[in-house]
Amino acid sequence: MIDRAVSLSDDAALREALAGADFVLFAAPVAQTQSLLERIAPFLEAGTIITDAGSTKSDVVAAARAALGERIGQFVPGHPIAGREARGPDAALLDLYVNRNVVLCPLSENRPEAVERVAAMWHTPGACVRGMASGQHDRVLASVSHLPHVLSFALVEQILNSPDAALKFSFAAGGFRDFTRIAASSPECGATSAWRIARRCLPNSTTNTAVLARLRAAIEAGDGAALEAVFARSRVARSEWQEHRSAGDASK
Amino acid sequence: MIDRAVSLSDDAALREALAGADFVLFAAPVAQTQSLLERIAPFLEAGTIITDAGSTKSDVVAAARAALGERIGQFVPGHPIAGREARGPDAALLDLYVNRNVVLCPLSENRPEAVERVAAMWHTPGACVRGMASGQHDRVLASVSHLPHVLSFALVEQILNSPDAALKFSFAAGGFRDFTRIAASSPECGATSAWRIARRCLPNSTTNTAVLARLRAAIEAGDGAALEAVFARSRVARSEWQEHRSAGDASK
Repeated sequence: MIDRAVSLSDDAALREALAGADFVLFAAPVAQTQSLLERIAPFLEAGTIITDAGSTKSDVVAAARAALGERIGQFVPGHPIAGREARGPDAALLDLYVNRNVVLCPLSENRPEAVERVAAMWHTPGACVRGMASGQHDRVLASVSHLPHVLSFALVEQILNSPDAALKFSFAAGGFRDFTRIAASSPECGATSAWRIARRCLPNSTTNTAVLARLRAAIEAGDGAALEAVFARSRVARSEWQEHRSAGDASK
Repeated sequence: MIDRAVSLSDDAALREALAGADFVLFAAPVAQTQSLLERIAPFLEAGTIITDAGSTKSDVVAAARAALGERIGQFVPGHPIAGREARGPDAALLDLYVNRNVVLCPLSENRPEAVERVAAMWHTPGACVRGMASGQHDRVLASVSHLPHVLSFALVEQILNSPDAALKFSFAAGGFRDFTRIAASSPECGATSAWRIARRCLPNSTTNTAVLARLRAAIEAGDGAALEAVFARSRVARSEWQEHRSAGDASK
């Protein structure tokens, strides 16, 4: 266990830090995956397993393949789905991962024992480990996480671009706050990796535009029944999801 | 002050309830405005002022004109922008309106004293009363309230329609909860008035689609700088809005 910062420019310190390591938990902005993995690769022993915490997986896998080459089998892609707005060691929570999902996207090159050891590591703080292909992971997360981010940003941008922006903001209330909180608390979207994340949403934003077009058509036709059906369906689904989730929290 | 329920089918009780009334605060689903106003109109004395609490104003004004005819000057359109998910007398909060906006949309037929008396009524529980034309009110609220509702519903609907809906819901986390809370807590969208409210969003959803199209283009072009600019702008605007709002809350 390394309990101190090691400078990436210090070969000797890197070598010492990685000597005999069972695990490397790689937690860095997704866009820096390849360059950082290339930097540590020379000091990586054959018995060390690397796993990561990036919120996209297809691009991380491509970056890891480019950086690690034939040693890609040592890299087990992962995504712990839990986080806080606050950062740094003081923001750490002992129970952050209890009952939270951690997705692992094993590669064909991974030995089963390597995947099992990463899963066991995440079970320790109480996480639920779920396996999935990288592409499926990215599609699922794009729907429930990245697309809401883009819609939230789009709403604020639209208000900013309108002639009476100040007036509109002065009338924004609790619903607006909830709707846009997701935009406020997304550190990843601030980095140069923004477009990588956003690109994941592309197929979903097309579908979303299609749904919006249907809603628009119902609105234009004054078809209250069709709208009401959509609204009711959403409300029931959202409420079932919430109940299911509360049950999960209660079982902590 | 009438402190009991009066049956709308009981002419004598209605007449008694409205006799000598200074104010009628009309709080009913927007879609029922015309029929309910028609029902009480025969018992309304010339000195009584009616105001309402509906979340749209152009359609309420049209309904009131149809119901009240030449007596439309007695009706001062209003929209108190505060509410709770909980309903009924037990959910009442003494400070619900403190520092909250109440919009009045005076008509050319209203006597200035009538508007002033309605404003004074709302000042009593601590509200900030602001004047605005009906059309402007509807455009502003469509941006900051109704459009977020529609986007939130569209997101849930899109997930429901996708082949792996259950998997996606099982990965929805806090951001999704915030983003969709607005859809869960919108009783008005459940009534037959859904399409009236949604129609207010029509111009805005066009603009929103345009903003989304620009974001899509930037994503497709891999233009991270353009995306980052939009995200940063949104985050700053949202944060300034939040600070401004917190300052307002603190001044209670």
